[in-house]
Amino acid sequence: MTYCVGMMLDRGLVLMSDTRTNSGVDNISTFRKMYHWELPGERIITIMTAGNLATTQAVISQLEERNKAPSERHNSLLEAPTMFKVASIVGNLLQDIIEERATDNGQKAAAGTFSASMIVAGQIKGMEPRLFLIYPEGNFIEASFDTPFFQIGETKYGRPILIRGYERDMSFESAIKLMTVSFDSTLKANLSVGLPLDLLVIERDHFTPRHERRIEASDPYFAAVSTSWSEALRNALDGLPDYRMDPAVKEILG
Amino acid sequence: MTYCVGMMLDRGLVLMSDTRTNSGVDNISTFRKMYHWELPGERIITIMTAGNLATTQAVISQLEERNKAPSERHNSLLEAPTMFKVASIVGNLLQDIIEERATDNGQKAAAGTFSASMIVAGQIKGMEPRLFLIYPEGNFIEASFDTPFFQIGETKYGRPILIRGYERDMSFESAIKLMTVSFDSTLKANLSVGLPLDLLVIERDHFTPRHERRIEASDPYFAAVSTSWSEALRNALDGLPDYRMDPAVKEILG
Repeated sequence: MTYCVGMMLDRGLVLMSDTRTNSGVDNISTFRKMYHWELPGERIITIMTAGNLATTQAVISQLEERNKAPSERHNSLLEAPTMFKVASIVGNLLQDIIEERATDNGQKAAAGTFSASMIVAGQIKGMEPRLFLIYPEGNFIEASFDTPFFQIGETKYGRPILIRGYERDMSFESAIKLMTVSFDSTLKANLSVGLPLDLLVIERDHFTPRHERRIEASDPYFAAVSTSWSEALRNALDGLPDYRMDPAVKEILG
Repeated sequence: MTYCVGMMLDRGLVLMSDTRTNSGVDNISTFRKMYHWELPGERIITIMTAGNLATTQAVISQLEERNKAPSERHNSLLEAPTMFKVASIVGNLLQDIIEERATDNGQKAAAGTFSASMIVAGQIKGMEPRLFLIYPEGNFIEASFDTPFFQIGETKYGRPILIRGYERDMSFESAIKLMTVSFDSTLKANLSVGLPLDLLVIERDHFTPRHERRIEASDPYFAAVSTSWSEALRNALDGLPDYRMDPAVKEILG
């Protein structure tokens, strides 16, 4: 499994992904699921991936034209005129790779096996920062401030806190704190999502990462949030109105 | 979908279930998913259900022998010597009904269609309160204070808060508050889980409901928790240590 979140704020984009891949619970590895490319001063483009690892690595490799000599490579994402075109390129490539592999292995049995989905985010100079969710079928949707974040992978455990905590004008630091809690809740519930995490902050109109980090298992900030959050939640629960089982009292309150 | 939680506390059992059933998003109904039977002073037994509604209603109807004249009915749950036997009876009946329906309709296509799972809870005089999770295959597991609550249906959205908030010595009122938050998070994320909710509190060694209620959509307590929780969570987030993007500062903190 996987957990990745891409979030759109007024001031830019924040992206976080885990790094755990597994084929059964007895075969666990660490692989990067967040990639980015930049033309400093002109564009920055990020992809986060969930699903079949061979599929997602094939997409990234083909985007970077790794079958050619280094001097002959062109990354089409760095030449696309708009972020919409970037999402189209990634979607078409993803769908082609899944279909090719599935066809080679007998369409029916393999349809789900090679599936993957992706989050594409970035900004090209003169245009707005954009955030897309790419489906295995190659089509995609774009975030707006009605739906300002996308999740892929194990999305459910960490969703309620994102729904409650998100504000479009929040600071990058607050957004990172919110995502850290969302990831911590997911890690606590699903063993197939695991540390370390990759974090990338893209500030509007700065075409280079504003902040980029790998959050290791020993990270003191992650540990502090993880341990403080249980206590913070209990205090939050304590602060809620108390339930009364006595119907007479309930009538007065109601 | 469905969401039901059964929780074991030092002082007894707390059970909550939603009432929404759906066949597609355009066919939504309200059905009770929580049932209980009692021999006052001797035993109280509860069942909560998730999955195919025809299956779960068939289980309840057969337990109550509704195919017989009222005067001739015996509820085997009220005659079973132990809660373990109660769980066995429910599990075997559930598995029989799923298998019968699946066989009649062609095993392969129908295997999942008629599936259901259940939570069985209660106490018989002279023995401990017990809580079981019954699988569609008819087998079951029992809760202990290592794993003191069971969820069925849409379990993921509401799980992190249960993990963090549960304490075995908490009051019934606190447990109800915790469950209300867990249900509110689930309702906000999944349209196929819906109000009203059914609530039942079973106090240890009291073989009649300590508290029993239907929480309607207009319930002032549910509304108060739902609106307060967003603010409480934001305050909880504010209280967590702040992330610093400046590496120099981070070094000092780390």
